[in-house]
This record gives sequence, C-alpha cells and structure tokens, in this order.
Amino acid sequence: MSSTATRVAVIGLGSMGFGMAQSLRRAGLDTCGTDVAAEAVARFAAEGGRGAATAAEAVPGADIVVSVVVNAAQTEAVLFGEGGIAAAMPEGAVFVSSATMDPAIARRLAARLEATGRHYLDAPISGGAARAAKGELTVMASGSPAAFARARPALDAMAVKVYELGDAAGTGAAFKMINQLLAGVHIAAACEAISLAAKQGLDLGKVYEVITASAGNSWMFENRIPHVLEGDYRPASAVEIFVKDLGIVQDMARSERYPAPLAAAALQMYLAAAGAGMGRDDDSSLARVYAQLSGAVLPGRKA
Amino acid sequence: MSSTATRVAVIGLGSMGFGMAQSLRRAGLDTCGTDVAAEAVARFAAEGGRGAATAAEAVPGADIVVSVVVNAAQTEAVLFGEGGIAAAMPEGAVFVSSATMDPAIARRLAARLEATGRHYLDAPISGGAARAAKGELTVMASGSPAAFARARPALDAMAVKVYELGDAAGTGAAFKMINQLLAGVHIAAACEAISLAAKQGLDLGKVYEVITASAGNSWMFENRIPHVLEGDYRPASAVEIFVKDLGIVQDMARSERYPAPLAAAALQMYLAAAGAGMGRDDDSSLARVYAQLSGAVLPGRKA
Repeated sequence: MSSTATRVAVIGLGSMGFGMAQSLRRAGLDTCGTDVAAEAVARFAAEGGRGAATAAEAVPGADIVVSVVVNAAQTEAVLFGEGGIAAAMPEGAVFVSSATMDPAIARRLAARLEATGRHYLDAPISGGAARAAKGELTVMASGSPAAFARARPALDAMAVKVYELGDAAGTGAAFKMINQLLAGVHIAAACEAISLAAKQGLDLGKVYEVITASAGNSWMFENRIPHVLEGDYRPASAVEIFVKDLGIVQDMARSERYPAPLAAAALQMYLAAAGAGMGRDDDSSLARVYAQLSGAVLPGRKA
Repeated sequence: MSSTATRVAVIGLGSMGFGMAQSLRRAGLDTCGTDVAAEAVARFAAEGGRGAATAAEAVPGADIVVSVVVNAAQTEAVLFGEGGIAAAMPEGAVFVSSATMDPAIARRLAARLEATGRHYLDAPISGGAARAAKGELTVMASGSPAAFARARPALDAMAVKVYELGDAAGTGAAFKMINQLLAGVHIAAACEAISLAAKQGLDLGKVYEVITASAGNSWMFENRIPHVLEGDYRPASAVEIFVKDLGIVQDMARSERYPAPLAAAALQMYLAAAGAGMGRDDDSSLARVYAQLSGAVLPGRKA
C-alpha cells in the first residue's frame, strides 16, 4: 500500500459494514476495520484487511471514517462517548455517517463534530448486504462541499449512485426517512393484501402475477411477496429494522406535529411481529401475523 | 351492420362505459348504449352509435350485456330492480359485470342470474378512461367457460389483457379488491410521505427522483405524485372512488373477520379528504389534507 493511499477507517463490520470495507479495499484504499465483535475484526484481517480492536485505535491517521453502526445512539457514542473518536480523528478528516436516524439528530451530531475542525457527511445508505459487498450501494448524502470532497474516494468505492442532496447534514437523513416510511408501509400493505388473498382462497401465485402487472404494485410487493409464496422467512431484512426505522419516522413526525396514520398502523404490525417472536425473521413475516390473526393459511416452506 | 354481427348492449356511458362502447363499435360489434343521463346517450348516438332510453330497451336481442355502473347496488338494480333486465335478456346471453364489488355479492348476483338461464361474467376492469377509449383495459375475470366463450368478442374489443382467474363469479371481484387495497394504501402513503417531505423543507422534485429509483417506490407514487408537484388536483381519478373501494375492502374484511389496519387507516384519510370538500378532486388531494393538518406547504398550481 503506497504511503499516499487514502486511509479509511470503517467502524462497524456487520453485514453492511463488512461488505463496504471489502469494497474500499478492492478500490485500493488503505482500509482499517473495527467492530465491538472481535471475531468480525479477525475475519476482516483474515481476508487481508487491517483490523483494530477499538475505534479509537482505528482512526488516527485516517482521512475518512465510515461509520456503519445501527442507530443514532451508537453513532453518538462512537463520536463522543467513552473512548469516542472525535478527538482522535485527524483535523480536516471526514466522518461519513451511514446509520438511519432522525434528521434533527444528524444536524446536532454534525454541528458538534464540525466545531472541532472535522467534517461530517450525512450519508445514509440503501441496497442491502449483497450490494454493499459489490460496492453498489445507493447513498443519500448531504453535507458541506469540503465533506463531500474529502469523502469522495470512499463514496466512489462503495456506491453506484450518490445523491447529493444539499450542503447541510440532516437532508440526507430526511430523504432516507421518507424512503423508509414508504418501504415500511408498502411491506405491511403487501402482507395485509397477500394474506387477505389467502383468506379468500385465491391462487397466490396468480395474485402475484396480476398485482405486479397492475396499479397496485410496489417495489416491496414485488421483492418481498416471493418470500411468502416460498414460505421462506429467513432474514433478508429483519422485522426489527422496521421496528427501528418506523419508530424513527414516528418520533420525527411527532416532534414535527405531523400526523402519519399509515406509518403508525404499519409500525403496529411490525411490533406485533416482533412481539410474537419474529423480530429477527424476514420482514415479510408480517404476513404470518395477519395469518395468525385471521386464520388465513399461507404456503409452507418449499423443500 | 351485418345481421350476424355480435350484438352488445352497454349499460352506463360514464367515463369508462363511453370509451368501452366506442371500443366495441370500433371492433365492428353492433353496439347499443344506454345511461340514466339522456345526454350521454345522445352523445353516443351523435358519434354514430345506437342509443336506447332505458336498459330494458337496450338488451332485447343482445348477445352480450356489458354493465359499467358504479357499484354492487346499481348492478343489482340493473339486473333485478324495477325495469331490471334479467328477464329481458335473451336466454343464453351473458352479463359482463365490471363494477368493483364485494366478491360475496358477485357470487350472489351470478347465482341468481344463472338460475334464469343467462350467463354471468365477473369482470372488474382497470386502466382508466383513456385506456377504455382505446380498447386497452385490463380485465380480472372469472366465470363459467360458457360465460367466457359468450363474452369473448366484447373482451377482445375492450381489453389488451384478460386475466382468466377461475370458473366461478367472485374470484375476479376478489382479485380486484386485493389490487384496490394496495392501490388505495399506496396513494395514501405517497401523500403522507410527500407532505412530510414538504414539512421537512425538502426539494420535492428531488424526493420524486430519489424515491422512484429506490425501494420505497410504488406504481401509485410514480403516477400520482406529479399531480402534487404540479399542484394540479383536477380529477384523473377522484377521492370518492377510494372512499367506495376501501369501504368495500373494509366490509369484506370485516365479514371475513380479517383485520386490515393499513386499509383502515388509508380509508380514514380518503374520508377526511371527502369530508373537507375534495371528494370529486383527484385522489392525490390526500396530500392537501396532510398539509392542512400539519402546516406543510405544497406547491401551488403551475401556470
């Protein structure tokens, strides 16, 4: 690795972060990964990456810090908690925050970090683990021109599409929340519809064929209902993700004095699924909740 | 018109029925149209069609009767009410019912008509007025093989796609209701999301660009949100349509003991829009309801 290679620290080597770290390395960036789970760090090192035991050890010398933790609270702890990295990051480096969070919190974290002379890029991601590993994510980003310029080598390595949504943190987060509101409602609606179709005794494969060619279609109906038809609820994306994300939508809408009855109704169904023990199963498990509540019979697991 | 041409009666010359009658004539079928509004009949006659003052006058000699009335109650009145046509239809003729209705009612009407020696095709339509006029509708049909065979010339003239969904009335209606559940929820979700974006001060054109390329997209988001961006609420499809159709979904779900919280929440928003005086405006008017309830500012009407 040449001494002039851009240095990146990736904090959080879960299903998304691990793939993003792989994509950064593949693009020739000098990448150091860290995670609270030592085995994730060991796995990254075994593939030839540099590992660090703690975030504070990963960030000195980094030009770019990519944070791929779960939520706002973890992001705040990474930056400003015990062993937080804000002071350990080189001045002028950029913190790229990918966790989905309330825009107001993104603005607050950015202001606090920028006051120390580091840059903050509000950069929530979408695309899933497979696309993370291929460097094909979509990023909904906002931040200062300097933050974008600093982060560019990492963005180019991780994403096929970077939406540049404004020059202040919070805008990227807000776009992501609008998307999550729709995605969360559409999954719940898809499950409500397919289980009602089952209750009516309809041919569910035919329902899928007709709806995906009709005005009732959504990206999520098309993507998730095959899981129901196969009876396969292994997690591609877990129920708990939307417990979290529609929870953020509700918090954000409540603080804005904005009534969001569709998002509220959908959240209840994710809570019911999680409460019934399906929190770590695929989010299409909402169909099983509707079936339990109504006596509808869904397809069993295909061999 | 040759004496061997298939004879069709169209009952209901509204925005859908008028276009369907035009498509039937264009395909060479001997078409007689009727409507409770005399001016609609006069307009059809002025274009060269045959008009009749009442349904009872339109159906004698018809091979196919296409009913394009608003709902189940009107369909029942056309068939069995005062001046109803059931007895006036030739034996062996087919009644093609396109109104959206509860599947249980479709089954009941079919059984009653078939007991008199006429056929019933449960054939809800989708596609809107423009496609009706071009003979490019989608039909979600179910009924006996004899009903399909009899109705075929009319189906071919009116539709680009006929889904054959089963051999009993009710199945077509059930598919249509599943589609309407999704369509109605998706419009409400689209309006909830775009007005929340407005409340957040986001660039709404950019929101449209990002969402239509993301997992939060739906057919309805893509189709309806441009009305909001243009501030143009002239009715392409009116709020009252979903007051009716989600009402049917609720009736059907309630009688099946099926909880449908997303559809229920969406229905409340259509009711609010209609209650606030927007019932005959475009269904994207739900965005205006959210704006009124939250202080969000939506784009005004473009010149």
